[in-house]
Amino acid sequence: MRVIVCGGDGFCGWPTALHLSARGHDVSIVDSLVRRQWDAELGTQSVLPIHPLSERLEKWRDLTGRVIRSHVGDLTDAAFLMDVLAQERPEGIVHFAEQRSAPYSMIDRQHAVFTQVNNVVGTLNLLYGIKDIVPACHLVKLGTMGEYGTPNIDIEEGYIEIRHKGRSDVLPFPKQPGSMYHLSKVHDSHNIHFCCRTWGLAATDLHQGVVYGVQTAETAMDAVLYNRFDTDEVFGTALNRFIAEAAIGHPLTVYGKGGQTRGFIQIVDTVRCIELALEHPASPGELRVFNQFTEQFSVGELAARVAGIAPRAGRVATVTHLPNPRVERDEHYYNAAHTALVDLGLRPHLLDDALLEDLLRLAIRFAERILPDKLLPTVRWR
Amino acid sequence: MRVIVCGGDGFCGWPTALHLSARGHDVSIVDSLVRRQWDAELGTQSVLPIHPLSERLEKWRDLTGRVIRSHVGDLTDAAFLMDVLAQERPEGIVHFAEQRSAPYSMIDRQHAVFTQVNNVVGTLNLLYGIKDIVPACHLVKLGTMGEYGTPNIDIEEGYIEIRHKGRSDVLPFPKQPGSMYHLSKVHDSHNIHFCCRTWGLAATDLHQGVVYGVQTAETAMDAVLYNRFDTDEVFGTALNRFIAEAAIGHPLTVYGKGGQTRGFIQIVDTVRCIELALEHPASPGELRVFNQFTEQFSVGELAARVAGIAPRAGRVATVTHLPNPRVERDEHYYNAAHTALVDLGLRPHLLDDALLEDLLRLAIRFAERILPDKLLPTVRWR
Repeated sequence: MRVIVCGGDGFCGWPTALHLSARGHDVSIVDSLVRRQWDAELGTQSVLPIHPLSERLEKWRDLTGRVIRSHVGDLTDAAFLMDVLAQERPEGIVHFAEQRSAPYSMIDRQHAVFTQVNNVVGTLNLLYGIKDIVPACHLVKLGTMGEYGTPNIDIEEGYIEIRHKGRSDVLPFPKQPGSMYHLSKVHDSHNIHFCCRTWGLAATDLHQGVVYGVQTAETAMDAVLYNRFDTDEVFGTALNRFIAEAAIGHPLTVYGKGGQTRGFIQIVDTVRCIELALEHPASPGELRVFNQFTEQFSVGELAARVAGIAPRAGRVATVTHLPNPRVERDEHYYNAAHTALVDLGLRPHLLDDALLEDLLRLAIRFAERILPDKLLPTVRWR
Repeated sequence: MRVIVCGGDGFCGWPTALHLSARGHDVSIVDSLVRRQWDAELGTQSVLPIHPLSERLEKWRDLTGRVIRSHVGDLTDAAFLMDVLAQERPEGIVHFAEQRSAPYSMIDRQHAVFTQVNNVVGTLNLLYGIKDIVPACHLVKLGTMGEYGTPNIDIEEGYIEIRHKGRSDVLPFPKQPGSMYHLSKVHDSHNIHFCCRTWGLAATDLHQGVVYGVQTAETAMDAVLYNRFDTDEVFGTALNRFIAEAAIGHPLTVYGKGGQTRGFIQIVDTVRCIELALEHPASPGELRVFNQFTEQFSVGELAARVAGIAPRAGRVATVTHLPNPRVERDEHYYNAAHTALVDLGLRPHLLDDALLEDLLRLAIRFAERILPDKLLPTVRWR
């Protein structure tokens, strides 16, 4: 299948591009490389050194004989994007090309506006490009479980049947996103839904949980192919922060009570979910929503897990609590459906202590690249 | 009360500014005047001639002794907006300053992107401006009944209690908007909801129905104060199109079967609803949603009403059906709650034949300003 991976230089996009290429798909990458620029802006870096995209692709060709084409440009540049679509004529587009950090979007007004404009306009351009140039192309869009927020009812996969005053309908699940970034994904979801209903486009919106792990079979083949490993307050996740803190002997910093519960997924399952979505496309006119995660954890549970395995790597980790810089419930009900991808064939890799130990050893090996003053929260929601 | 009316040069904003000024509020207008530019772009014009904003304000002062200040600039220009907020220190902001035509947003990709960026960024800037400069200010935002679409259940005012698998929660009512413009309002609603929850802002989102009528007591005082009367396919409503068609002896053009049912409100009730919302503000942290309409009609019913009164003004009107340029259900269930504003004191002016006759006589009087080739649909949803 001819597939474009938008955002193919990023943490999820890069391993996805390699995975699809390894499985015989004809892959090209569209990426503006702006994620590397944000590292420069914030004074941060990936704990694993990442190589230039051109070098990565050359190495991949040398090792496997497989060619991944690249187009360096921005989805908000419509002329660029339309040229790429006309040239590549993709049958599937995987769309990771968005600003994906909640704290980045909450730095200030400019970053909020940038995040929403960047994400919404990039996705709108993609929708118009598909309609005008490759209308049969299946769009696989990365959304987030964070679109739902933490309602007091079970979260379903995108839609919910509502019975009300003697009538019923199946309607989009109500959204209560928790940051300017999460809001941008909700905006995208509504825009995509409209284009499917109105133009007959076929799309799958993967409401992904928090991704953990770093390497896949392909990125681990060579240091030039290594994936990003972000531990800073802006682009790192809570689990990555705990790993980095354990590596450098800092207490594990839980925001608030730590009862914040979310869905999680391993990077090796992310790339498999994308493949499954592409192999089983949505129908014309359909916006299909899958909740793409495999397990639920609270932040406090994750800190305890990391503290538990730290001694295996020669570290002692204590857990401490910080005032929560975010505005979110830290004790709440949370139960989200996630069976659709399993029904398509996903066999989940669950969080085990061996993986946590591997992550911690990796962080220890590259400990000099962990920037201690970038771990603690400075971006505040209020 | 010190009130800013954003979009105070437009069809709803202008009569609102005058009404609030007449009731003794200290009013200023913020408007970029871009609506006048869209007339130029589209080659259309208001059936009633409208005067420059400065001339309107001078006439208002001459007639009433009341001063309305004006700031000409765009809400997407954050520096301009922050200056205005610091200068005016408003206690209430009424926000009409958005691109409000569904067909305009559906002209092409550029108009879709413009509409969403213009509306979303303007509202985001306003939210940040309130947070940073006048945090106690009550935001009265114009949304639209079109955010809800046409679900197969009763539409409530913004929120709905959902019982699901033995649990329940009150959640935002699911949205299924029908154009790139309506989507922009849904994005705004989610952004405002977040800012209320997170920053404690107080906001009222008025999900307004289709507005009809032209003049209020204030705009009718002098020709210089006259309000807009749009009948073109892009900025006119179905009812205004029927009136214009009847005036020039064209058959009344119903899109599709004409079963499309919507909520409607008279312009004299619009300005009263704004006043009621300002006088009874939302609480800090609350996004309150009122459905701002007074009656439901189908498009076919409106055409029949206009045809029925046409002979009183010496016209014979027939009804014809065109293929629907929009993608929408033309037969559907529709029943939307609208009691909150009545509970605050609104006494609705319902659609009566005398008003329709007045509108038709007005259109006949200015018939040479009706552009026949701008009445029929050219913008198509597909």
